[in-house]
Amino acid sequence: MSLRAERVLRSAQHVAFFRKAGRWGHARRIVEGLLRPDAVEYPFEYPITTEIPVSDPRYNALLSAFYGQTTAQLEAIARAGHDVAVLCEGDPFFYGSFMHLHARLKGRVPVQVIPAITGMSAAWTATGQPIAWGDDVITVLAGTLDQARLEQHMRASDAVVVMKIGAHFPKVVRALQSAGCYEDAWVVQYAAMAGQSVAKLAEIKARSLPYFSIILVHGRGRRP
Amino acid sequence: MSLRAERVLRSAQHVAFFRKAGRWGHARRIVEGLLRPDAVEYPFEYPITTEIPVSDPRYNALLSAFYGQTTAQLEAIARAGHDVAVLCEGDPFFYGSFMHLHARLKGRVPVQVIPAITGMSAAWTATGQPIAWGDDVITVLAGTLDQARLEQHMRASDAVVVMKIGAHFPKVVRALQSAGCYEDAWVVQYAAMAGQSVAKLAEIKARSLPYFSIILVHGRGRRP
Repeated sequence: MSLRAERVLRSAQHVAFFRKAGRWGHARRIVEGLLRPDAVEYPFEYPITTEIPVSDPRYNALLSAFYGQTTAQLEAIARAGHDVAVLCEGDPFFYGSFMHLHARLKGRVPVQVIPAITGMSAAWTATGQPIAWGDDVITVLAGTLDQARLEQHMRASDAVVVMKIGAHFPKVVRALQSAGCYEDAWVVQYAAMAGQSVAKLAEIKARSLPYFSIILVHGRGRRP
Repeated sequence: MSLRAERVLRSAQHVAFFRKAGRWGHARRIVEGLLRPDAVEYPFEYPITTEIPVSDPRYNALLSAFYGQTTAQLEAIARAGHDVAVLCEGDPFFYGSFMHLHARLKGRVPVQVIPAITGMSAAWTATGQPIAWGDDVITVLAGTLDQARLEQHMRASDAVVVMKIGAHFPKVVRALQSAGCYEDAWVVQYAAMAGQSVAKLAEIKARSLPYFSIILVHGRGRRP
């Protein structure tokens, strides 16, 4: 966490955060002991996780309604004259859920975003190797892309980061194999979190990976 | 700066950092007031900046000798039984100068790397827009690449980050124009530093950009 984020959180009177229904929440757990004892908390519980596939039109409709409601809640707090801190894991503008609230709040109430350490930085640091050197090209891919597109980018890049893997793991592995970078790939699970694990991809036997997993292929470019 | 980095720096008895010859140094300035008054400082002054082109064999030879000397200094401190903190701007394993010391120190003395906020996260936060959405592909490019390679990656990606621009600026602009993303590009100079500026690329009249400049093209992917 950054000093700036810590300063905001220590004094925040209203604190909102996303979590899976019925869970304590990763983001909330990180700030345990940091918040004011009298801070008012707003847990935003995702209406769905993996029950409905992303391709189903109901998926977008449900999430869109959820983001609409949470935005209305934040806006109401702001209009009552209060600041509200929204917790994010990783960097808010790098595939964070908060992006969907930000897009809806923009122009309605003032929003300040505090940049943060991305999950991928935590992941490559955990491997003990720089992700890239010199003029290496780094590509960040979502495991949800189709195999051909994954392969095409893996071939064209010097360094690769794959996020959002989950049940797409076997397809991502096939793409890495076809692109010739399977042997060089690493998997970091729960980077910078409790239970962090780091392994060469070739050593992984599972058929799927937890949500907080990142696959890395390091670049080997020019270096003095 | 992260809480973890701050904790290390507040107690560090030996602190090393890179800087341009004769300058105070960006990294050193950031920690002013944070270090112990009796901390021993080791400024590592780059032997060259832009006097010798990267393509000149002397460039690599000079830098390699410089990294060799600084590594020897760090190793000597460690072998004398002391910890030494090395300052890095941005994330150390994301194109940081420290990578060249890390590669030389690895296996000789214990080294711990603390992940940090990348310059590109600071840059896209400064634009007030997420860099990418859903399964957008993000590609990180060095302005030192040739125009054809830049163009090819710009065309294939949804979101683009260009670093290491400097005197390569006109070439990067031509590549963005050919790839059809010039109108959507932003330039952030000195992200999260004093003198930060944010502008649409089309508004920039200069022929080169300062070292701490990043060009961004935001993705516009799937969003609920």
